[in-house]
Amino acid sequence: MHSWIEISPDSDFPIQNLPFGIFETDDRDPRVGVAIGEYVLDLCAVARLNFFELIDIDPNVFHRPYLNDFIALGKPTWRAVRNRVSALLRNDNDEISGSSDMIDKCLVKQSDVRMLMPVKVGNYTDFYSSIEHATNVGTMFRDPKNALLPNWKHIPIGYHGRASSIVVSGTDIRRPNGQTKAPDADAPTFGPSRLLDFELEVAFITGKETKLGESITPNEADNYIFGLVLFNDWSARDMQTWEYVPLGPFLAKSFASSISPWVVTLDALEPFKVKGPAQDPKPLPYLEFSGNHNYDIKLEVLIQPEGAAENSICHSNFKYMYWNMNQQLAHQSSNGCNIQVGDMYASGTISGSDKGSYGSMLELTWRGTQPIKLSDGTERKFINDYDTVIMRGYGERNGIRIGFGEVKGKVLPAL
Amino acid sequence: MHSWIEISPDSDFPIQNLPFGIFETDDRDPRVGVAIGEYVLDLCAVARLNFFELIDIDPNVFHRPYLNDFIALGKPTWRAVRNRVSALLRNDNDEISGSSDMIDKCLVKQSDVRMLMPVKVGNYTDFYSSIEHATNVGTMFRDPKNALLPNWKHIPIGYHGRASSIVVSGTDIRRPNGQTKAPDADAPTFGPSRLLDFELEVAFITGKETKLGESITPNEADNYIFGLVLFNDWSARDMQTWEYVPLGPFLAKSFASSISPWVVTLDALEPFKVKGPAQDPKPLPYLEFSGNHNYDIKLEVLIQPEGAAENSICHSNFKYMYWNMNQQLAHQSSNGCNIQVGDMYASGTISGSDKGSYGSMLELTWRGTQPIKLSDGTERKFINDYDTVIMRGYGERNGIRIGFGEVKGKVLPAL
Repeated sequence: MHSWIEISPDSDFPIQNLPFGIFETDDRDPRVGVAIGEYVLDLCAVARLNFFELIDIDPNVFHRPYLNDFIALGKPTWRAVRNRVSALLRNDNDEISGSSDMIDKCLVKQSDVRMLMPVKVGNYTDFYSSIEHATNVGTMFRDPKNALLPNWKHIPIGYHGRASSIVVSGTDIRRPNGQTKAPDADAPTFGPSRLLDFELEVAFITGKETKLGESITPNEADNYIFGLVLFNDWSARDMQTWEYVPLGPFLAKSFASSISPWVVTLDALEPFKVKGPAQDPKPLPYLEFSGNHNYDIKLEVLIQPEGAAENSICHSNFKYMYWNMNQQLAHQSSNGCNIQVGDMYASGTISGSDKGSYGSMLELTWRGTQPIKLSDGTERKFINDYDTVIMRGYGERNGIRIGFGEVKGKVLPAL
Repeated sequence: MHSWIEISPDSDFPIQNLPFGIFETDDRDPRVGVAIGEYVLDLCAVARLNFFELIDIDPNVFHRPYLNDFIALGKPTWRAVRNRVSALLRNDNDEISGSSDMIDKCLVKQSDVRMLMPVKVGNYTDFYSSIEHATNVGTMFRDPKNALLPNWKHIPIGYHGRASSIVVSGTDIRRPNGQTKAPDADAPTFGPSRLLDFELEVAFITGKETKLGESITPNEADNYIFGLVLFNDWSARDMQTWEYVPLGPFLAKSFASSISPWVVTLDALEPFKVKGPAQDPKPLPYLEFSGNHNYDIKLEVLIQPEGAAENSICHSNFKYMYWNMNQQLAHQSSNGCNIQVGDMYASGTISGSDKGSYGSMLELTWRGTQPIKLSDGTERKFINDYDTVIMRGYGERNGIRIGFGEVKGKVLPAL
């Protein structure tokens, strides 16, 4: 399947992808768009031109600053819209391509748009579902012989994070101030974090609500997941060490999390489904699932110092997840906690088994003991001011590449 | 100061209080009201009748299912509206009282209204700021000699909670299912929590936002706090024990939290300001404050078994808080985390130093070892199915009582 829009083979956005996002330009106020090659299809314009007339949908739902109202319409509607967009963009369709006026109304170059937060995030959970990451952390901070805590293989461990400070790719990140205490110091001090880190994660966004008291099974979860984004869970390691016992991470995380702007649908990722790691012991029945729910998505992290080249420092893969998204969502709802439209559920740091696949500086430099050398001759234990951290991800199969674009953020000095 | 509405001396809602809430009746869709004695003043009606014409405010802001749009207008507007409401209700004012038609349009009996969630909660933080509670928990679960963790007297410890499952008083609470593991068991099991508890808390709601990267001082916090509600942080102790290391409470809390429907403003609580406990060691400069920011508010918890009488089981006081609200909000923003309108910040369990003031069953029965006898002859270690838990609170000074009403919830059996 090809589009009448010319698309480079290494584009993240072929006609098989069609991710949704919110964009604006100097002429167009915030609205829903779909990425196609180097362009954005303006769904607000497409809907107002009656191209969705066979779908029972109010065109105004695309003229919104967030995707929430659209995705609240449910999976049959997301699918119908995406299928119709696919048809409109196919090389055998001239409804838009046949008129330069239509093309001007419906297509905008990605280089001319500003991408905005795709959803208004109601609730945000961060899981901790990579066994390699949890093992690395346990090895460093607790006991190498008992690196995993006793609950880890029974529970998709997670915690609630701060929704307000989730920002879209391109937003500068201010180095946080906070309390830290050196092991040999009598008392803590307050000031800029010295150990600023990223965490390579993927997050899913829910598009269907449950009522308080209801729970869903892993096999039902697919109907609740709208799509996925790349997620950088910025972390201040020195603040985290001092604050996190007994109630978990708080200010060490809540200063910012960054996401990629295009939400890639579960449908688009279907070709990349793979079997996940064996789960032993067998999970409790409420976490049992059938089929494959891991995804072979290659992930990369790069550091770009101010004015210098990008340095690739990590290659990981979303398929390494021990607990899959379906289990995570089933667990979240297992106590009757209600799921809402626009919730974000992040994977936790995605590390693989070899050193080059670790998804944080903490692990890559092993608490700073093994600094990474960059191409400009400098080295990094953690992230410096004015460094830009970039994450990219894509699946590739039979020559078709489905990508996420990127999430990037530049660190500014503390105020 | 008296109202032309007759108000019982033991009412929580004299003319000096005037808390804001959202109500509906069979005839009136959800809208903003103010409690006065046994009545609700319909601010939507009051505004449409032009009684706010000297205040620059759109009447539609009162015709909303949440207070968020109103409180986003800022403290000068909350104050102007509350002062005008006070004038309209004073016994020397006949603008409403002079006409039975006006009275019918503006006043509804509380017994005829359904109270709804007062705000759409964007972000929810639960602090852990009672030193007596933290000491009790540390004594039970860790080491009586080192009950407080090293960070506790330096940091207003808190964690992010689940916003979606905060419900208004009167909502039934479904006993959660979840994983628990007996100390001597090899593996966890999944089923109804056996140790369901309440936590007596007070929460404040913010009415002013900060930008990402900004922080505020404790002395600035008063301008950000709209008002307070009673807060029951329902907790499943057996689930909590098994899940909470290392990332904190998650499903043990996220099944539900209950709040009282009337938001009592900081202005109304001004007469109850008292000095808080001495803070030693001295907090870091970003947590320093001037003036008094503790509040002498009497708090009570009652258990009412199905079809039986209420049993008062706890008398505590909001003034016991070690960390005050201003310090909590300053801490929350100290890393640049942005505050939003409608955020909820709960105190953590409020226990005093004597046993009758402990704010949870965990402490009152000392992990179930000292059951509480109820007037119907039964006893409780934790909360049973069909028990209703009720919390009430008020300040009293110079014969004037400013109350919160109550938050109550009945526990239903697990599904």
